[in-house]
Amino acid sequence: MKEIVRVNTRRGDVIRQEATDEEMRWGGRLLIAKFLMREVPPACDPLGRYNKLIIAPGLLGDTPVTTAGKYSVGGKSPLTGGVKESDVGGESGRKIARLGIKAIVLEDLPDRPVTYVLILDARGARLEECPELKGRMVTETFDRIRARFGGQVGIMAIGPAGEMKLPGAGVAVTDVDDIQLRYAARGGLGALMGSKGIKAIVVDDSGAPPPAYFDEAFLKEANREFVKMIMADPKTENRHKYGTPAVLMACNALGILPTRNFSSGQFEKATSIDGERVADVIAERGGEGRSGRPCVRGCVIQCSNVFPDPSGKKMTASIQYENIALLGSNCGIGDLDDITELNDLCNQVGVDAIETGAAIGVAMEAGIVPFGDAEGAKDLIRQIGRGTPLGRILGCGAVITGKVLGVRRVPAIKGQAIPAYDPRALKGNGITYITSPMGADHTAGNMLETAKTVDPLGRERQVENSRRLQIRAALLDTMGLCLFTRPPFVKRPDFFGIFLKGRYGWEMTYADVQRLGIDCLETEREFNRRAGVSEELHDIPEFMREEPLPPSNSVFDIPMEEIQRIWEVQVPADVF
Amino acid sequence: MKEIVRVNTRRGDVIRQEATDEEMRWGGRLLIAKFLMREVPPACDPLGRYNKLIIAPGLLGDTPVTTAGKYSVGGKSPLTGGVKESDVGGESGRKIARLGIKAIVLEDLPDRPVTYVLILDARGARLEECPELKGRMVTETFDRIRARFGGQVGIMAIGPAGEMKLPGAGVAVTDVDDIQLRYAARGGLGALMGSKGIKAIVVDDSGAPPPAYFDEAFLKEANREFVKMIMADPKTENRHKYGTPAVLMACNALGILPTRNFSSGQFEKATSIDGERVADVIAERGGEGRSGRPCVRGCVIQCSNVFPDPSGKKMTASIQYENIALLGSNCGIGDLDDITELNDLCNQVGVDAIETGAAIGVAMEAGIVPFGDAEGAKDLIRQIGRGTPLGRILGCGAVITGKVLGVRRVPAIKGQAIPAYDPRALKGNGITYITSPMGADHTAGNMLETAKTVDPLGRERQVENSRRLQIRAALLDTMGLCLFTRPPFVKRPDFFGIFLKGRYGWEMTYADVQRLGIDCLETEREFNRRAGVSEELHDIPEFMREEPLPPSNSVFDIPMEEIQRIWEVQVPADVF
Repeated sequence: MKEIVRVNTRRGDVIRQEATDEEMRWGGRLLIAKFLMREVPPACDPLGRYNKLIIAPGLLGDTPVTTAGKYSVGGKSPLTGGVKESDVGGESGRKIARLGIKAIVLEDLPDRPVTYVLILDARGARLEECPELKGRMVTETFDRIRARFGGQVGIMAIGPAGEMKLPGAGVAVTDVDDIQLRYAARGGLGALMGSKGIKAIVVDDSGAPPPAYFDEAFLKEANREFVKMIMADPKTENRHKYGTPAVLMACNALGILPTRNFSSGQFEKATSIDGERVADVIAERGGEGRSGRPCVRGCVIQCSNVFPDPSGKKMTASIQYENIALLGSNCGIGDLDDITELNDLCNQVGVDAIETGAAIGVAMEAGIVPFGDAEGAKDLIRQIGRGTPLGRILGCGAVITGKVLGVRRVPAIKGQAIPAYDPRALKGNGITYITSPMGADHTAGNMLETAKTVDPLGRERQVENSRRLQIRAALLDTMGLCLFTRPPFVKRPDFFGIFLKGRYGWEMTYADVQRLGIDCLETEREFNRRAGVSEELHDIPEFMREEPLPPSNSVFDIPMEEIQRIWEVQVPADVF
Repeated sequence: MKEIVRVNTRRGDVIRQEATDEEMRWGGRLLIAKFLMREVPPACDPLGRYNKLIIAPGLLGDTPVTTAGKYSVGGKSPLTGGVKESDVGGESGRKIARLGIKAIVLEDLPDRPVTYVLILDARGARLEECPELKGRMVTETFDRIRARFGGQVGIMAIGPAGEMKLPGAGVAVTDVDDIQLRYAARGGLGALMGSKGIKAIVVDDSGAPPPAYFDEAFLKEANREFVKMIMADPKTENRHKYGTPAVLMACNALGILPTRNFSSGQFEKATSIDGERVADVIAERGGEGRSGRPCVRGCVIQCSNVFPDPSGKKMTASIQYENIALLGSNCGIGDLDDITELNDLCNQVGVDAIETGAAIGVAMEAGIVPFGDAEGAKDLIRQIGRGTPLGRILGCGAVITGKVLGVRRVPAIKGQAIPAYDPRALKGNGITYITSPMGADHTAGNMLETAKTVDPLGRERQVENSRRLQIRAALLDTMGLCLFTRPPFVKRPDFFGIFLKGRYGWEMTYADVQRLGIDCLETEREFNRRAGVSEELHDIPEFMREEPLPPSNSVFDIPMEEIQRIWEVQVPADVF
């Protein structure tokens, strides 16, 4: 059986409950949606007593299925005011699952300023006050926890931004090799964790009994077949070699690469910051630099990297496409050393690099620092860490930055910054950003994948396509699988049922599994409706319906009535 | 016939349309609700192209009925995101009405930075660029306009806060004697005016033909009777002598006087800042000081004042109870000279003193400056005028200040700061703040008036009472009458029909008139529903349901289900 670990941050105690049969059927993103709907008043203050921070491995979180160690962090978002699930790799997800924990639920608020560490191990769970961690940068926090708890534990932590409860703050996690610093970045969940007084969570699964699979041999055999199909997909090698920055030139060619606060879809210095360039610099500089690293144990795609500075010392790990786009081209910055330093600064102070890059773009439009001023941008992120008034404004994300600085061109939907795919020239993404319960989030259903089969500039089939990819994303996030495992599922959606049978003995057709994804979206949507965050209220930013995006000179022109149809779209029950 | 004057701020042109029969039946607040519902997409960006700033005299705006020169400024609020009507005295309302203008509608946005003055006179309406006014404080703006247009014109203007589009900005207006600086303060309408590039509006009614009343003698006779009843009411003399600060000691006694960011309902220095003290200081110092001044021509109540500094020079005019409470006790400041200077600073930079006082209280709770630090508070308001990052944060109002500074105890509902009546010990006001389409606004239905007949700490009859007073407020704001004209209407609600008959020849029972108020509220509520600003989504701040308010130690405990019933409450058709 699995446990729900409830941590009351006011009383400082922990309650462990056995998961019910119904709860056993939930995992990752679906579990978060269900728990929020059941336990959190949708209209509550996201940083108040009634919100909860929920951490949940996916349904396959404790299995050997490749990438399945990804896990979900969620709650009512301090950024969007709606439901938020942010999933992340690293080492803690599998450890949480191996400890037999279905979900960790952080409840209530401390009634005094406090800096807690939550410790989860085979003996149980407990809160410990660690005032010496107060205000520490993320790597320093990890280092101090490592020094005390050793190299085998998984760690989640927030930076000063999360402690300051800034809605742009994320939750940082360690990776399998203790090299990368990864983030459950979006939606301000670091602020939610900070509001609970929790600076870090330590997960130690040593001594935990091995998971009781229904049929281990069957599960492992299925995974072997699954891995073979992933490896056979041509995209996998590309991802392995160049990481997510592999798509930068494609995005530039499509004219969707955010440039200077979303005023262009192409950047004149794109070749200086693309995937090949990232890989070349890593290879040239050597030292601590690495391409093709895994973020979760057992991942065969291994799309992460360690980006070194000119001396070969690690600058940031991993550097991703979206961060390059938002901190780079979107700020008019075309130098990888600058961009990776900006990325590292975000990682250290504890903010989402996408949100922060968008906020800096807005601040640049307001004239706070000029576009292209990398040193100015670095100073702005350092100011977030110091909590200066300007730093705090930026740490609140793009929307509040725009409001405070009087900028109308703010690239955000439902309070969250638009990621690195301008929806004017990849219109399906606009539909995802508007209708996804997550707000503007490319991981909720990214049409880049289908740009060759569905015209990104056209209006045809966009709604249907977004619906299909949104169900997919919800499913993968419920299982704890990486989006990059899609290729085998496209050919064989029955893999889901096979894995669930091997793990739990459940008999589920793909139609049954698909309903989990639909249920997840519907539950999230209903929560958002009650929280006042629905698509009728949150169209694309007005400037994107007015202002043509060079070079396609396209505007976002899909009418809201058409977009609303998305909730009626039926995806065939045998199509992933 | 009356005209609708539409000013397109992008093209820079003006269109004048004859008001339709339907439009003729609308005035003030009702007109704004109807125009917004008809013309403004509820989910639009309040500072974008699709919002409109609407200025409308009440239905009695061009009549000699006492106080009827009050008029309404409205639009989708940059502060609340919902409908906003802010009404104000001064001289312009009657002048607009005398020019035969039913409403001024400012549309679209300029496509370049521009500083316009809108000039309305008997020849028509036109926009003129006045770059020399850019960034000027309010009094300086008034002085420069006076120097050019003379003493006979009415002026509306915004300060630097409005030009910066800060959501706490208001619209300042001149008064009948050119002494007072009054404000359509609440809801950020100054930011909306600033977004349209309009720094000031000049209204010159010289040469306008006299209004064509249906029956002037009848109207004047009715007004005489009406005035007699107002003067006979004991509250009138009290208001005349002490102004709105007359209620401060009563509020202190009830324990609803906001003190140190709403942490207490009583202030130990209350007697230093109450109405008697205000009147005494004015009398002692002499000079330019005055009590008992009118804000609109023909007002017989005359509750305004001119507060002098120790040398007798005008410090601020008029100083009101709510401003004393929010800038004073709510900030722990108990000196009238400090408070009136703070008030003047708000007036000059162009922000709502209530919103700004609440924002400073939140900033004090965050430790930016200590409670009681008057010089620190003055510096903060000056920073708004200069547009420093901290100043801009405060200029965005209490909610954004709380978000950026990480404060949970934010006294605001629907994005707007709670005025000077703590709803924990005047529970009916909590119902008004939650359910009024205006957000937390005491002028929308203030239960202080009924504190002797409805227990302010009890739950009985609060919902019904709020409903009744909200209909009242909507009616008075639709007529253009001051809330302080209530006494005769309580005894004789037929006065409304009489005035409307005298002005227009309409035959309306009070039941007909009451329906205007109900229609106004329902229209506003529907706009808000479509804008995502409804009471289910915006309960009272959580801390007010948890944290007992000294000295009554009462919390706000009216359940949302009970509050929601307000929309079903029927007020008898013969009760005002």
